Amino acid sequence: MLPNLTPDVALAERLFAELRERSFDGTGITREAFGPGERMAHALVAEAGEALGLEKRVDPVGNLYLTLPGADRAAKRVIFGSHLDSVRSGGNYDGAAGVLAGLAAVAGMKQAGYVPARDVTVMAIRAEEAGAWFPTSYPGSRGALGSMKPAELEVRRLDTGRTLAEHMRDEGFDPGFIERGERAIGADGVAAFLEVHIEQGPVLDAEEIPIGIVTGIPGSRRLRAGKVVGEWNHSGATPRKYRRDAAIALADLAVALDEAWCRLEARGHRMVCTFCVLATAPEAGFTKIAGEAQFQLDVRSVNLHSCDALFEVLYDKVAEIEARRGVKFDLGPEAGSRASPMDDGVQASLRRAAEALDVKYLSMASGGGHDAAAFAQAGVPAGMIFVRNQNGSHNPHEAMRMEDFAKACAVAQRFAAEHAG
Amino acid sequence: MLPNLTPDVALAERLFAELRERSFDGTGITREAFGPGERMAHALVAEAGEALGLEKRVDPVGNLYLTLPGADRAAKRVIFGSHLDSVRSGGNYDGAAGVLAGLAAVAGMKQAGYVPARDVTVMAIRAEEAGAWFPTSYPGSRGALGSMKPAELEVRRLDTGRTLAEHMRDEGFDPGFIERGERAIGADGVAAFLEVHIEQGPVLDAEEIPIGIVTGIPGSRRLRAGKVVGEWNHSGATPRKYRRDAAIALADLAVALDEAWCRLEARGHRMVCTFCVLATAPEAGFTKIAGEAQFQLDVRSVNLHSCDALFEVLYDKVAEIEARRGVKFDLGPEAGSRASPMDDGVQASLRRAAEALDVKYLSMASGGGHDAAAFAQAGVPAGMIFVRNQNGSHNPHEAMRMEDFAKACAVAQRFAAEHAG
Repeated sequence: MLPNLTPDVALAERLFAELRERSFDGTGITREAFGPGERMAHALVAEAGEALGLEKRVDPVGNLYLTLPGADRAAKRVIFGSHLDSVRSGGNYDGAAGVLAGLAAVAGMKQAGYVPARDVTVMAIRAEEAGAWFPTSYPGSRGALGSMKPAELEVRRLDTGRTLAEHMRDEGFDPGFIERGERAIGADGVAAFLEVHIEQGPVLDAEEIPIGIVTGIPGSRRLRAGKVVGEWNHSGATPRKYRRDAAIALADLAVALDEAWCRLEARGHRMVCTFCVLATAPEAGFTKIAGEAQFQLDVRSVNLHSCDALFEVLYDKVAEIEARRGVKFDLGPEAGSRASPMDDGVQASLRRAAEALDVKYLSMASGGGHDAAAFAQAGVPAGMIFVRNQNGSHNPHEAMRMEDFAKACAVAQRFAAEHAG
Repeated sequence: MLPNLTPDVALAERLFAELRERSFDGTGITREAFGPGERMAHALVAEAGEALGLEKRVDPVGNLYLTLPGADRAAKRVIFGSHLDSVRSGGNYDGAAGVLAGLAAVAGMKQAGYVPARDVTVMAIRAEEAGAWFPTSYPGSRGALGSMKPAELEVRRLDTGRTLAEHMRDEGFDPGFIERGERAIGADGVAAFLEVHIEQGPVLDAEEIPIGIVTGIPGSRRLRAGKVVGEWNHSGATPRKYRRDAAIALADLAVALDEAWCRLEARGHRMVCTFCVLATAPEAGFTKIAGEAQFQLDVRSVNLHSCDALFEVLYDKVAEIEARRGVKFDLGPEAGSRASPMDDGVQASLRRAAEALDVKYLSMASGGGHDAAAFAQAGVPAGMIFVRNQNGSHNPHEAMRMEDFAKACAVAQRFAAEHAG
């Protein structure tokens, strides 16, 4: 029999308000990874955890662990975790919601005098918003899990030009931990990792469903520095047959891939394909035919074969457009990531918890990447709960209803009590 | 019987070399309109004209006239003219070739002791490279012809932020001339205006023909500040049906217009259609679906009905893409110009001259705009000779062979002797 537990959502609400007040930059929320904003947030959460009587630990990479001791302290623990940094002028909930959901769940247990079977830890992870600050993925969680390469410490923060290692040292942490190949946690000590996070897309809001249970985090194939080279010419004086127009060649490619995406979806592939940047070179201007254009392409799917199918179309089209328009494509280096399916057992427990609590949910793939991917890759059974959000993410208008957040907290709390029981 | 005339191409060659030396900016040629570069060039040409014994006059707008007196000084004159300014880091020949061709032709007459039936004037026109300096067309030639509106004196030079009137005054000229509606020349005193100019496109070079006889200067319909507004969203987390992607909507439009251009050409339309700028907004970047994109569209034809036909497709497509992709197009203000056909009589004389001199020519439309358009619009019989060029125009690599230039000079000279005889 499970006890009658309630998450302390009021605590989370108070902390959300404090976080917002202390990290509002005039436009939105800015909490720099390994910088003052993140430092403030970690201090605030640590203080709240200590006030609850949780055990506090900080690993050499800077991740914060607040633990409610379980009956069997040697048993594998359950971790609730997410990040406390934000993009520049982003929203208050992206990341913080997962940490505060964990705190609300654990506070509720503590207040009810409930002792879980095993340790339940709230983990505030460092520097997840890699794209915004450091060009690497999940240095906080991968640093803790021992899956970060020492060379990745040398990536430079985009605005300061200083390395990740330098910024870690500035904040009092020890990049040597990563250089020495050490780790703070791993599959041997963690029964499950659960990340509550706002949905970054519009699906739950459009479908009028408060939470999502995530089936997986997509893998990706990415071109961040694609280029088309044609020839700069006079737009009035160059008839069609003498043109090598990089702008129209790029438009051709974009439309062709969009059509291919449509066809693949009709055949059952689930994926997204986005030209995040599609632009004539800065020197483009009136009366010139563009001799160069640039693009960034982001293709994602939980099933990487779908990404591959689209890239096959890309290669064919590039050759065809080059021949037809006299341009050259330079796709640049390709980056990407493996897909990270969420653990089937964790998903099943989350569904059971939601059903028991009468919370409507949607099973759905994640769109973006999350720390949960690093845990899944490290062999930790991982799961995620999405909270319906309004206005998207990574912008100051990002929104989340407290009633939806409360449902996610309740499901997370029940999951910990049941799955970890 | 025409005398045996030869243009003094060596004089032009010497002046090209001087111009290049005095206006090389380290990368290319820069002769600022109503600035030091243009001032230097006018002084150099004036000095050369005076050394030849030509009559020198400067109108209140700053245009320079060097005249070889004819037998009948009251008869309408023939003017050879082009501009001496350049774009920033452009080439040495764009503009200057027309002035020096005139000087070479007149010098040859003078040296042969030939007295033309009517005055033959070499005109060095101010500030033709309007796009590069002042956002207005042909202030020099239109200023001389009395077809410039006083309000146009208030356009600001793009780099200095100061008005055309201020820059004219700095150089010692009198914008009041334009304010008072006066003119220096007009159809009543000019029998023909002939502009020698490098071809700004690749046609003559590709066809291996040294000169072109221009049939007309195209009119245009232009959108310089087009915009597509969609919605910024997360590229991973936003499935296809929730997207309002400005980038792909703009690519759609570009490809649709390119296809329409193809179809119209197959039906006999002669035109060009260029997305000079086609770009996601500056805030676009990785993991974002573009919520805004910008474009500049330049559609030109000697027959404006062809431009109109393409714009009909534009309007249809905009509505269709808006409905299909949930975006809004904002076409911004439309600019444009009337087409300026070159005078049939002038063209016929140029053809006769070329044939008499055994110079191979191509009858062709101009791509870009030229001062000759201002003369044609003012009712002056106008013509143009294009000189084959290599490497396009408006760039430091612009090139022209002296043997081709010599042919253009010879045709121009014979035209003046015959057409004006």
